[in-house]
Amino acid sequence: MTVQTDLMAKLDANKQTMIDIRRHLHQHPELSFHEKETAEYIKAFYKDLDCKITDYGEGYGFAVDIDSGKTGPKLALRADFDALAVQEDNDLPFKSVNPGVMHACGHDGHTAYLMVLAKALIELKDQLHGSIRIVHQNAEEVSPGGAKGMLAAGVLNGVANVIGLHVMSSMPTGSIGYHLNETQTGRANFTITFTGKGGHASMPHLSNDAIVAGSYFVTAVQTVVSRRIDPFDTASVTIGSFDGAGSYNAIKESVTLKGDVRVMKESTRTTVRNQIEQIAHGVETMFGVSADIDYDDNYPVLVNDPALTTQVTDSIKAAKIPEITTVFDCGPQDPSEDFAYFAQDTPSCFFYVGCQTADGANHPHHSPDFMMNEAALIIAAKAAGTAAVAYLSGD
Amino acid sequence: MTVQTDLMAKLDANKQTMIDIRRHLHQHPELSFHEKETAEYIKAFYKDLDCKITDYGEGYGFAVDIDSGKTGPKLALRADFDALAVQEDNDLPFKSVNPGVMHACGHDGHTAYLMVLAKALIELKDQLHGSIRIVHQNAEEVSPGGAKGMLAAGVLNGVANVIGLHVMSSMPTGSIGYHLNETQTGRANFTITFTGKGGHASMPHLSNDAIVAGSYFVTAVQTVVSRRIDPFDTASVTIGSFDGAGSYNAIKESVTLKGDVRVMKESTRTTVRNQIEQIAHGVETMFGVSADIDYDDNYPVLVNDPALTTQVTDSIKAAKIPEITTVFDCGPQDPSEDFAYFAQDTPSCFFYVGCQTADGANHPHHSPDFMMNEAALIIAAKAAGTAAVAYLSGD
Amino acid sequence: MTVQTDLMAKLDANKQTMIDIRRHLHQHPELSFHEKETAEYIKAFYKDLDCKITDYGEGYGFAVDIDSGKTGPKLALRADFDALAVQEDNDLPFKSVNPGVMHACGHDGHTAYLMVLAKALIELKDQLHGSIRIVHQNAEEVSPGGAKGMLAAGVLNGVANVIGLHVMSSMPTGSIGYHLNETQTGRANFTITFTGKGGHASMPHLSNDAIVAGSYFVTAVQTVVSRRIDPFDTASVTIGSFDGAGSYNAIKESVTLKGDVRVMKESTRTTVRNQIEQIAHGVETMFGVSADIDYDDNYPVLVNDPALTTQVTDSIKAAKIPEITTVFDCGPQDPSEDFAYFAQDTPSCFFYVGCQTADGANHPHHSPDFMMNEAALIIAAKAAGTAAVAYLSGD
Amino acid sequence: MTVQTDLMAKLDANKQTMIDIRRHLHQHPELSFHEKETAEYIKAFYKDLDCKITDYGEGYGFAVDIDSGKTGPKLALRADFDALAVQEDNDLPFKSVNPGVMHACGHDGHTAYLMVLAKALIELKDQLHGSIRIVHQNAEEVSPGGAKGMLAAGVLNGVANVIGLHVMSSMPTGSIGYHLNETQTGRANFTITFTGKGGHASMPHLSNDAIVAGSYFVTAVQTVVSRRIDPFDTASVTIGSFDGAGSYNAIKESVTLKGDVRVMKESTRTTVRNQIEQIAHGVETMFGVSADIDYDDNYPVLVNDPALTTQVTDSIKAAKIPEITTVFDCGPQDPSEDFAYFAQDTPSCFFYVGCQTADGANHPHHSPDFMMNEAALIIAAKAAGTAAVAYLSGD
Repeated sequence: MTVQTDLMAKLDANKQTMIDIRRHLHQHPELSFHEKETAEYIKAFYKDLDCKITDYGEGYGFAVDIDSGKTGPKLALRADFDALAVQEDNDLPFKSVNPGVMHACGHDGHTAYLMVLAKALIELKDQLHGSIRIVHQNAEEVSPGGAKGMLAAGVLNGVANVIGLHVMSSMPTGSIGYHLNETQTGRANFTITFTGKGGHASMPHLSNDAIVAGSYFVTAVQTVVSRRIDPFDTASVTIGSFDGAGSYNAIKESVTLKGDVRVMKESTRTTVRNQIEQIAHGVETMFGVSADIDYDDNYPVLVNDPALTTQVTDSIKAAKIPEITTVFDCGPQDPSEDFAYFAQDTPSCFFYVGCQTADGANHPHHSPDFMMNEAALIIAAKAAGTAAVAYLSGD
Repeated sequence: MTVQTDLMAKLDANKQTMIDIRRHLHQHPELSFHEKETAEYIKAFYKDLDCKITDYGEGYGFAVDIDSGKTGPKLALRADFDALAVQEDNDLPFKSVNPGVMHACGHDGHTAYLMVLAKALIELKDQLHGSIRIVHQNAEEVSPGGAKGMLAAGVLNGVANVIGLHVMSSMPTGSIGYHLNETQTGRANFTITFTGKGGHASMPHLSNDAIVAGSYFVTAVQTVVSRRIDPFDTASVTIGSFDGAGSYNAIKESVTLKGDVRVMKESTRTTVRNQIEQIAHGVETMFGVSADIDYDDNYPVLVNDPALTTQVTDSIKAAKIPEITTVFDCGPQDPSEDFAYFAQDTPSCFFYVGCQTADGANHPHHSPDFMMNEAALIIAAKAAGTAAVAYLSGD
Repeated sequence: MTVQTDLMAKLDANKQTMIDIRRHLHQHPELSFHEKETAEYIKAFYKDLDCKITDYGEGYGFAVDIDSGKTGPKLALRADFDALAVQEDNDLPFKSVNPGVMHACGHDGHTAYLMVLAKALIELKDQLHGSIRIVHQNAEEVSPGGAKGMLAAGVLNGVANVIGLHVMSSMPTGSIGYHLNETQTGRANFTITFTGKGGHASMPHLSNDAIVAGSYFVTAVQTVVSRRIDPFDTASVTIGSFDGAGSYNAIKESVTLKGDVRVMKESTRTTVRNQIEQIAHGVETMFGVSADIDYDDNYPVLVNDPALTTQVTDSIKAAKIPEITTVFDCGPQDPSEDFAYFAQDTPSCFFYVGCQTADGANHPHHSPDFMMNEAALIIAAKAAGTAAVAYLSGD
Repeated sequence: MTVQTDLMAKLDANKQTMIDIRRHLHQHPELSFHEKETAEYIKAFYKDLDCKITDYGEGYGFAVDIDSGKTGPKLALRADFDALAVQEDNDLPFKSVNPGVMHACGHDGHTAYLMVLAKALIELKDQLHGSIRIVHQNAEEVSPGGAKGMLAAGVLNGVANVIGLHVMSSMPTGSIGYHLNETQTGRANFTITFTGKGGHASMPHLSNDAIVAGSYFVTAVQTVVSRRIDPFDTASVTIGSFDGAGSYNAIKESVTLKGDVRVMKESTRTTVRNQIEQIAHGVETMFGVSADIDYDDNYPVLVNDPALTTQVTDSIKAAKIPEITTVFDCGPQDPSEDFAYFAQDTPSCFFYVGCQTADGANHPHHSPDFMMNEAALIIAAKAAGTAAVAYLSGD
């Protein structure tokens, strides 16, 4: 139990460092696949520490290897570091200095806690078995996501298990949420352009109205969820964009729709895709338009390994960390997450750290006023750290 | 002018006969293609007259030839004699004795006036040139219609022109309406059965809901008229029947829709048909159902020959018949009429004889309380007779 | 353990009796709320046994009370005995003799096993504590269901817990399925009549087309499930009947739709109802039709008490009954069941007894070829009996 | 006949002037309500001529009065002078020098011919009776149109009749088209914003999807033309703009639709407006969104006075102008035209001058490659001039 005690003490001692790092990152956010300075900043932190830095993939993602020198499994801990195309609305001393870019999802916090935890684990590695791979992942927010490329480059080679976490502004600070098996939705995105024939509004018979074709598509696509999916299964299909701006007196030649799909099973993903494509082809026949379909099946369903997840959350519960008030099954979560690629490859656990600023306070992720309670940083570090040392204890 | 004067006198003398015949027919209506007794009754009337009766076609239709013995064109006068599947609501001494069958469109009147007129023309034939063919047509109401078969059997062989008329309960008694060129709509009827897969209402994903497919078809078919037809052109598409009765808790395997199409140009007929079929095929692709389509292009657009129609209406105007208060262009009429087959074959004139029972009285054709003003009989006979003797005057 | 051993022996000895009873019932099925002879047949069985028969409610439902004479809780065991309006397709010596009526859901088996089990429990009652109420319920299939009336009449007064079961043709014989908490869907049924104005197909502007209004309703109602329900929640809305049969050439004045709703939460039931009514009212405004809505919230969600259900299934597992190969969490089930009313009133357990005739054999419930493996009868009796004696053991 | 001969001679002599003026205007197009330099250019032309210039309305429109000094009616001749927001695609020495602005409808030609004709009429005024008002109208293309304002300012005070014309690239050069009574469609434009509630694509139940609401509106609005309008009447409803651009993963809070309506009767205009508003309100109820409707009934149906139009076209036919090959009833025309305001106020005649560059050449009005045959200028001048001198001949 010494190593756990030591770890807690080290993290307590570095609480302010986490906050400082998080604020630095928050002030200097970079968009997915463009996180050059962010990656350099993180690497600089590790420069003089006893570890090994390796780049993985074409982006700015990299890993930091910590070797205990003793036999044992290799455990990966992962945090993402990209920001979003959102203009920050918060009035903060460390408000984003990059116009139109903001850490509006908490990845600044993920990276901050993991850097400080990694340093502590490096310092305690003689008390551990096996090895630790700290995965600093780029580009979680934007398809195809950074995880896929890092995985292809071998970032999980030799890794036995992966642990990741996400701060959650909808959960009270002090709470740890988790779920076994299917935990976050898989996602697909699609773009369909319906092209008819433009013309004068007073002569519809000489044209072929793309707005009409697109609108019937939207109404028909509602049947995918309402009629094709088992009521006990999960799916959503949203047309998030109907780009058909024009003038009063001209019939639109073409419109472009963008859609979003969420599922909890890969078989459902296939059903939904087939149905959407079939409906688009039906619209082609029905109205004599052409449908140009670009369909991108991207993030998989995030599936938590039940054994690992139980082990991780049991170790957190057992540690009786004073800042943690509850560890509970929070059920599946609607959003998608490219950690799912790691979990698809290697048994993994992804859990949630409440970061609500106050009771009932509402700062939704991705909104311009997203705000995290910085008390969540030490909680994240202690929870992940506890799970890691328990995992690498050699028992 | 002697023959015209003689004709008017003869018709005036037989006014009550027309009424008696009409009442007899009204009391004993027979459905289209089943008018056996009606045909026998009419033929009996001609039995001892100087004319020749010939059957045409597979149905009960026949013609009565009247020959002046002098050279000149052959003119056909046509009246239809079938009734409808309507239960009469009127309380009349001569109310229909056949349950569920009624002369609810005035064909009894058409036949009555033409029989009496024919007898007068037989009696006056020495004063005429050329010849007259009285066409007693069966089965006007039901596709494929009696006209088509009689035509195929040669009823218009040698005929130069055809004149027909319809009583109209929407026009005041005393008025004669007409229109040049396209005068009544052409028609098509179709039946489409969409077949999916039945199942339990609680498990939509294991079924394929035919009611959903049929409903989207109905909404999409609205675009045929709204987007495919020149706003200056005429078309209507009605789904008159959506047969999908079932229970609360089962998903329907199939539904059957019946549709009706009206147009004023044959090119529009083609456009509408193509679009409807295309939309049905689109529904097949969209929902994975099958569409069994039975499409019947039946009655053509009724096109009045402008020269003949002007000649007919001019002769009626010139005759200054006391019962006729106005002869006016009433514009095109919505319903279809199988006289259109005769007009397609031979230059023809089809006009309207007002038969309103009183100002503003509303007894729509085909309704169970349809009622004609019997004063329209003598008007019909005088108008058609005047046109005929003017036509056959030898000038 | 003696009573358990005795019970198993008694049931084994009466295996054929169960089959005989089930076949008698199968041959003489009666529709819901009309099960007069069925009730008399069952009551006759109990006539000379040491028990008390009491009628509950306006229908033919009744209960049989078995008193151990010792203090302890009162446990109810429930089986339903009504049949369906289905014409049997099976070729059996004991095929239904009532045309158009069939035990196509297995209620004959439920009643047969429970009668024989009840007799055994009567014979063993001195070895038990507390008391048993055997509930022979009428009219499970048809809203409002027999349970509601029996409940109102007090059938569960003094009852601590209720156990029920359903044979399942989709599960292998030998398997026992169960689920904790929400287990079968709640249901609502609705009827909506849209009334516009009839007329001639060629004059749509003088009518108001009810088929069009009904069809847009069907397309819009798809959004209830696709847009209003949490993707992790369960709901289905089916329009099972679209009664709009008419003719080609008339515009329909009114159409009547019947719908079915399934949910797993009462809050979802409210959301769905509000949305459906809102959409119907929207159609009224949109098309100027009237919507006459008759909405019937009937069977509740069937919620299994988790403690009781765990106790019941644990006792079955512990008994190591040779015919039972597996006891598994089968997840929630799509259909609704009026046992839900009992479970709403009193903590209950409803579980499933596989009755597949052979591997992969498909005889869906409610189909004309529904067929159960009669080996399921002894399994049902042993499973329910085991749970009952464990419950009433006095420990 | 002297004045007609003189007029033809003067116009022939100034053929090139018309072309030069037209090319100057073509090269310097100005948008509706911004035609400052155009108006100055035209006024400069009249500067030293014997006529009186008066501004009418708030825009740049004005009239030029020519008085014969003798009693007789006042006849107005009208031409419009605004250009369109179109980037010219033609390669011409006199191509538009104003980026994004183009005389793509032929108003340059209208103004050019009328200026030269006016000068000729000034020179010939002693041979005429009554007076002539040359109306140089601004802003025909954009609602509310220049005509309305000029009318309110009194431009037709004392005017007995108005004559106007439009070049038509769809008609062969040499042809003059006309139609009696209803001749060009009336128009309305509307903007509807549907507002629901934005949110994350994975959580539709927490949002209210405006794209869905807008799409159902588009499908329902098809019924206005397909079900509410007499098939013999004319109407079109086009949604020309569906502005709902967004992202894949967010549900749109609001969408804005723009629509265009064309009718041939004012009663139809009312029906269409009521239906569109009713459908928008139905969508509000149906989906719980709000519909912000801005409905602008603008240009009336253009109704040609039959007597005046017959007089005008008869005089053109009688003049046997060598460049004119045919004067024909071209039927009603789809587009709308704010000359309709003049025709609503004062009996008017608006006719068409073919300007096709070659047989079958297709340069649609309002397209970036619109091109007129300049031979149409002399034809327009001679036709309008002939009608004017015949009108003012004093007979």
